[in-house]
Amino acid sequence: MTNLTPNSSFSLTIRFQVPNRPGMLASVTKAVSSLGGNMGQIDLIEQTRQLSLRDITIDAASTEHAETIVKAVKALPDIKVLNVYDRTFDLHRGGKITVESRIPLRGQADLAMAYTPGVGRICTAIAEDPEKAYTLTIKQNTVAIVTDGSAVLGLGNLGPEAALPVMEGKAMLFKEFGGLDAFPICLATQDTDAIVETVKNIAPVFGGINLEDIAAPRCFEIEARLQRELNIPVFHDDQHGTAIVTLAALINALKLVSKSMAEVKIVINGAGAAGVAIARLLRKAGAEHIAMCDSKGILSLDRPDLTTQKQEFAIEKGGKLADAMKDSDIFLGVSAPGVVTPEMVRSMAKDPIVFAMANPIPEIQPELVMQDVAIMATGRSDYPNQINNVLAFPGVFRGALDCRASTFTINMYLEAAQAIASLIKPSDLNREFIIPSVFDERVATAVSAAVQQAARQDGVARM
Amino acid sequence: MTNLTPNSSFSLTIRFQVPNRPGMLASVTKAVSSLGGNMGQIDLIEQTRQLSLRDITIDAASTEHAETIVKAVKALPDIKVLNVYDRTFDLHRGGKITVESRIPLRGQADLAMAYTPGVGRICTAIAEDPEKAYTLTIKQNTVAIVTDGSAVLGLGNLGPEAALPVMEGKAMLFKEFGGLDAFPICLATQDTDAIVETVKNIAPVFGGINLEDIAAPRCFEIEARLQRELNIPVFHDDQHGTAIVTLAALINALKLVSKSMAEVKIVINGAGAAGVAIARLLRKAGAEHIAMCDSKGILSLDRPDLTTQKQEFAIEKGGKLADAMKDSDIFLGVSAPGVVTPEMVRSMAKDPIVFAMANPIPEIQPELVMQDVAIMATGRSDYPNQINNVLAFPGVFRGALDCRASTFTINMYLEAAQAIASLIKPSDLNREFIIPSVFDERVATAVSAAVQQAARQDGVARM
Repeated sequence: MTNLTPNSSFSLTIRFQVPNRPGMLASVTKAVSSLGGNMGQIDLIEQTRQLSLRDITIDAASTEHAETIVKAVKALPDIKVLNVYDRTFDLHRGGKITVESRIPLRGQADLAMAYTPGVGRICTAIAEDPEKAYTLTIKQNTVAIVTDGSAVLGLGNLGPEAALPVMEGKAMLFKEFGGLDAFPICLATQDTDAIVETVKNIAPVFGGINLEDIAAPRCFEIEARLQRELNIPVFHDDQHGTAIVTLAALINALKLVSKSMAEVKIVINGAGAAGVAIARLLRKAGAEHIAMCDSKGILSLDRPDLTTQKQEFAIEKGGKLADAMKDSDIFLGVSAPGVVTPEMVRSMAKDPIVFAMANPIPEIQPELVMQDVAIMATGRSDYPNQINNVLAFPGVFRGALDCRASTFTINMYLEAAQAIASLIKPSDLNREFIIPSVFDERVATAVSAAVQQAARQDGVARM
Repeated sequence: MTNLTPNSSFSLTIRFQVPNRPGMLASVTKAVSSLGGNMGQIDLIEQTRQLSLRDITIDAASTEHAETIVKAVKALPDIKVLNVYDRTFDLHRGGKITVESRIPLRGQADLAMAYTPGVGRICTAIAEDPEKAYTLTIKQNTVAIVTDGSAVLGLGNLGPEAALPVMEGKAMLFKEFGGLDAFPICLATQDTDAIVETVKNIAPVFGGINLEDIAAPRCFEIEARLQRELNIPVFHDDQHGTAIVTLAALINALKLVSKSMAEVKIVINGAGAAGVAIARLLRKAGAEHIAMCDSKGILSLDRPDLTTQKQEFAIEKGGKLADAMKDSDIFLGVSAPGVVTPEMVRSMAKDPIVFAMANPIPEIQPELVMQDVAIMATGRSDYPNQINNVLAFPGVFRGALDCRASTFTINMYLEAAQAIASLIKPSDLNREFIIPSVFDERVATAVSAAVQQAARQDGVARM
């Protein structure tokens, strides 16, 4: 948990009043910076001959860090702290998304077309030809973000209400990056059959289903059953989003170290939804040597405790994570903070590639092994090479909905990964730039095009 | 089906080209008006020395009427019809609502607060205190509009996809009139148990549930079970929305004819969701003489075919609708087009009140009995006294969500009706103005305040 950099998830604004005389503001900024707080905007709210009223915005590294800073500011002589705003909490107040009209309702004529009696003609048209729901309703552009709250971020089983802020955030990302209308469905059940039935029952409104933060191994069955029983595409982002972006980064990383997918020895630590999906996708991409580990070590044939999904990747030789990493070319972590030591990294083969993707604290802090690895990537935005699902899911759904795919195929995922990787020009490719920024506007379009082409090749595009 | 007035639900725009010489446009407008088309905007799109290109917008009375008009225009000499737009279909293309971000996502700092890692702090806060979902998520302002597509408008069992345009329209009305975020849930099941389970499973995201277009008698059980098993308010609009607005109009109508609720003889035709709810609410409002009819006649004690809900209103003396209407003071129709004859109205007591609310074609065309009744109301916007649910549901939910009601009570409905009725000042009240316009901006606020007060009195407000 050490060495966290200040970031805006722990951002606060302190409103304070000081006597209007030289040196007062400086005493505040000095106190904040000496404690490692990262200062942003400083606003002068009001000033009289006697007093100055200011807002200072500070990024801290943790809740405790933020509290320490506030305490230090409050302790300064002659200062009066009037208010402390937690910017993250303020931003969430009232929720993060809204449902809006696309068309105005200015009078009876609008009402008669958008609602009764005019809407009856649209209903009748769809009843006669259900395919028309795709042109005359929101279905064509609408995605359900479904969770049971059982595996919220890295925080665990928090339940449906506590999962909602994540799903709202996801809906924002769907809109911002994919132009899609996504709505959160947080389920008051964690029973597989009930989840499948519920999602099937609400499916008519949606063009696609994005499953999110559902615990393994339940997530595998839920996805498979829904995809079998629905005629719209179903995507478990924790699996395939992560797998697509990991593969994209790996494709570029391998170019830099001049190794091939077939020859490299890959260690995947974490055999949950993400780990299993990464392993499956890498196999399809040509990987032949994968050692997968869970918290008990290598998934080996002699272990009696493996789920069906884990058995898929069980190998002859067992051992600990450290044994797996020895002489391996690639470490892919989708596990827990700090489980990898510098020694383990140094035991890897020449030019090791390390993706420490545990969030928000990686399997190993990049600073500790930067000299020992060829390429390092994390899930964080404050280090180079951020492996972030937002590079995949908006374009994946944009493409699937635009070609009206009935399902997702593994080729659609492979092509999505290739599309992301190919956005980095060979001349730009370097150890700190193997994957585009999440704010690279080309990404969703490129992914969408690749997904549509693969869907057509696989015969699952209906348009 | 006769005597329909042209309206914008059958609105079309014809783009046509004519030689640029006097009299050409006049020949078009003459053709349209001689067929009874109602002309709106006429745009000059392009004009050269030789040719004029124009768009003319025309309201027709039906699809057939629209086709007749187009045919007549096409048959005019020297005209070239380039395109005919159906404005209602055009307006529905792509659906009518969107999901939008309430806050900008301009860069990593926004992302770190709205999504990972910052959002994790919000999730944790809600997991520790689930009530915080009301302040930190969309729950406080969000309503599910739930249908099984079994009773879509007056059109019948069209299924979930065909019901979606109505639910989208409803979501627009929730936003426009109540400032609420509503999202359509169209269910792929018409099984009572499955509907109840599904709605319970998706409830965590929502502050309230609006049931819509679910057939009777299933709707009664679904509403009752959901209200019992959920701690958020559940409202079947076809029942209570209609009942509230009907009662509001009736309160004012009775003032005009100087009769009291307790003394009047009321006939309700239609014993589905709306009819039963109206009868129940009128009883609570003091009505003592209600004869209820279904398609087979008066609900009487000797009828063996009555559902539980119909039995509630069964009376001693049976008969046909015509028998019930004889000497009655009030006719309330929530049934079918044209089932009431002028003779039946003329057989009513002195100063009869007739609410012919079947949509879009009333039980009797107002023109046929305007001289015979004291007050006439319909569900239509093109006659005076429109009984429209939009007067009730936005304010009802606004009030329920703002005081965080755990349920609806009958007092909340009664007070909502009183609030609507009281918006018509005694000096303004007349036979053509017993109920406010749906565009009267005071309505939702007044209803919301009344609902909150009643909720507090009944002890169901949690805030």
